[in-house]
Amino acid sequence: MEEILKQTLLYDFYGELLTEHQKQVYEDVILNDYSLSEVAASLGISRQGVHDMVRRSSRLLEEYEAKLHLMERFVSLREKVGEIHKLAKEQAQDPKMAKIDEIASEILEEL
Amino acid sequence: MEEILKQTLLYDFYGELLTEHQKQVYEDVILNDYSLSEVAASLGISRQGVHDMVRRSSRLLEEYEAKLHLMERFVSLREKVGEIHKLAKEQAQDPKMAKIDEIASEILEEL
Repeated sequence: MEEILKQTLLYDFYGELLTEHQKQVYEDVILNDYSLSEVAASLGISRQGVHDMVRRSSRLLEEYEAKLHLMERFVSLREKVGEIHKLAKEQAQDPKMAKIDEIASEILEEL
Repeated sequence: MEEILKQTLLYDFYGELLTEHQKQVYEDVILNDYSLSEVAASLGISRQGVHDMVRRSSRLLEEYEAKLHLMERFVSLREKVGEIHKLAKEQAQDPKMAKIDEIASEILEEL
């Protein structure tokens, strides 16, 4: 998985276990792609301080995943529901297939 | 949701975030249904100590769910995949439906 996608998913799953401050810095640097210097200036801390904080948050998120594997479970799930969606879509003139397609699409939106 | 089912699911999702000791006591009392007195005797601590420990672990698991809502997301997902499974099963003479049924069953086994 691409690194930025992985970091986004990890944050989506476990971000709420970080402190408010950690969340803010992680969002600015990783999700919103501000530079370390920009974030450092806006928070009045050093560039190195921002860097260390992001690294620590990343490590925490990875530790949660290493223990719980919920992101892994979810990614495998999404792939399978994607397969169902594809199969159902090809035959959506059948009312039951259309219903299955509708449910699969709902699931994919939620995931 | 029934209390014991909820406790089992919460433990399935977040149990790895408890300490080894907390896990052991939680499993004995909640999942394996030993009495507080039995667990207390086997660990050489008071009945009240076991009770407090289980309560604290339950609260921790509930706090993780209150922050992350991952159990809630998975339960909703499982219901929807169950609907797909039901629809596909009714028409499993159609090869595409049979394939969808197979994938849905795989998902339900994983969840």
